[in-house]
Amino acid sequence: MKLQLALDMVDTPTAERFVDQIYDVIDIVEIGTPMIIREGVRPVERIKEKYPNLTILADTKIVDGGEIESRYAFDAGADIVTVLGVAPEETICAVVDVANTYGRKCMADMLCISDIVENAVRLENLGVNYVCLHTAKDEQTKKNAPLDELSLLKGHLKQAKTAIAGGVDLNTIQSIIAIGAEIVVVGSALTNAPDLRKAVLEMKAAIVRYR
Amino acid sequence: MKLQLALDMVDTPTAERFVDQIYDVIDIVEIGTPMIIREGVRPVERIKEKYPNLTILADTKIVDGGEIESRYAFDAGADIVTVLGVAPEETICAVVDVANTYGRKCMADMLCISDIVENAVRLENLGVNYVCLHTAKDEQTKKNAPLDELSLLKGHLKQAKTAIAGGVDLNTIQSIIAIGAEIVVVGSALTNAPDLRKAVLEMKAAIVRYR
Repeated sequence: MKLQLALDMVDTPTAERFVDQIYDVIDIVEIGTPMIIREGVRPVERIKEKYPNLTILADTKIVDGGEIESRYAFDAGADIVTVLGVAPEETICAVVDVANTYGRKCMADMLCISDIVENAVRLENLGVNYVCLHTAKDEQTKKNAPLDELSLLKGHLKQAKTAIAGGVDLNTIQSIIAIGAEIVVVGSALTNAPDLRKAVLEMKAAIVRYR
Repeated sequence: MKLQLALDMVDTPTAERFVDQIYDVIDIVEIGTPMIIREGVRPVERIKEKYPNLTILADTKIVDGGEIESRYAFDAGADIVTVLGVAPEETICAVVDVANTYGRKCMADMLCISDIVENAVRLENLGVNYVCLHTAKDEQTKKNAPLDELSLLKGHLKQAKTAIAGGVDLNTIQSIIAIGAEIVVVGSALTNAPDLRKAVLEMKAAIVRYR
């Protein structure tokens, strides 16, 4: 299981300082949607320039203009670009096509989708590489990481891998490991820790211990 | 009816050159989602600085993190910020709240929503100021501006105003005027014109002529 650190409400210099501490122990760094709204794909570019071997996900949440928007993110150096699972089929296919052209990956975010299994299979058939089960930030007071959805999806995907995001911390990660996912996305549980590197290493150790 | 010029696939200097030509005759300038993905809200900031009286819409298409993402756009100077109609209710309410705090406006984009009337009424009840009927760029080869949806919605909204976007040009604008909308959004039909100012003035004249 890979650990993805989501950087959401920070500016580029702060993101850079975070990455400086963990670039050698993290699997994927996510430039989150709030950062992209504030600064565009510049932080992707900046961090890729500094750490060319680091896997970077640009959480663009594309919902239209699939070709041009994914191209902007891949051109900036993103290895994985996100598209909303609710987007029109043409948009999903455009992002998949651009990802394939660049030899990169496309992740579909399942935000706002209720019929998870049917839609995850549909998205896999459209060619997405990852399906991300995602509890919205704005809904995290009423529910946590979508563990039930992860269990439901088990065994239904042949090629696409699963990712899980939304309120994941050291407690919830054990249940996620027990069910199994390719990528676990963690934000504030890591970025709010007093020592980011220590927190990342603890979470990586938990992943090794419980798997 | 107000005319909104959508600037999508240009960089900030090009957007500025466009705006320099029409700032005194356009009702709303939209900084489109592709621009925001590429450069963040910087173009909003730059154009608002130069033309403080110009109404600027930031097409952020927020789908989560409603408070922080709308705040970034309003702080940059946006007068109107967009949220996806499919977003969780908490997200819509957060954007509405921030808009009210700033004394600005919130537009819900109806992309990926099939039951238009029911959802437009729901969004109005959540407090959005505008409901935007929107044919996705990626679907414009198979359909054009959502005129049927605009007709369907007629008479159902009490306070929220309607906007219509997606493949609008001088031909389709007459049908839109006949049905009625508060805002008509035009992108490439204006930005691809050999003379932007002339094209904007022609469209404004059409709006006066047919209303």
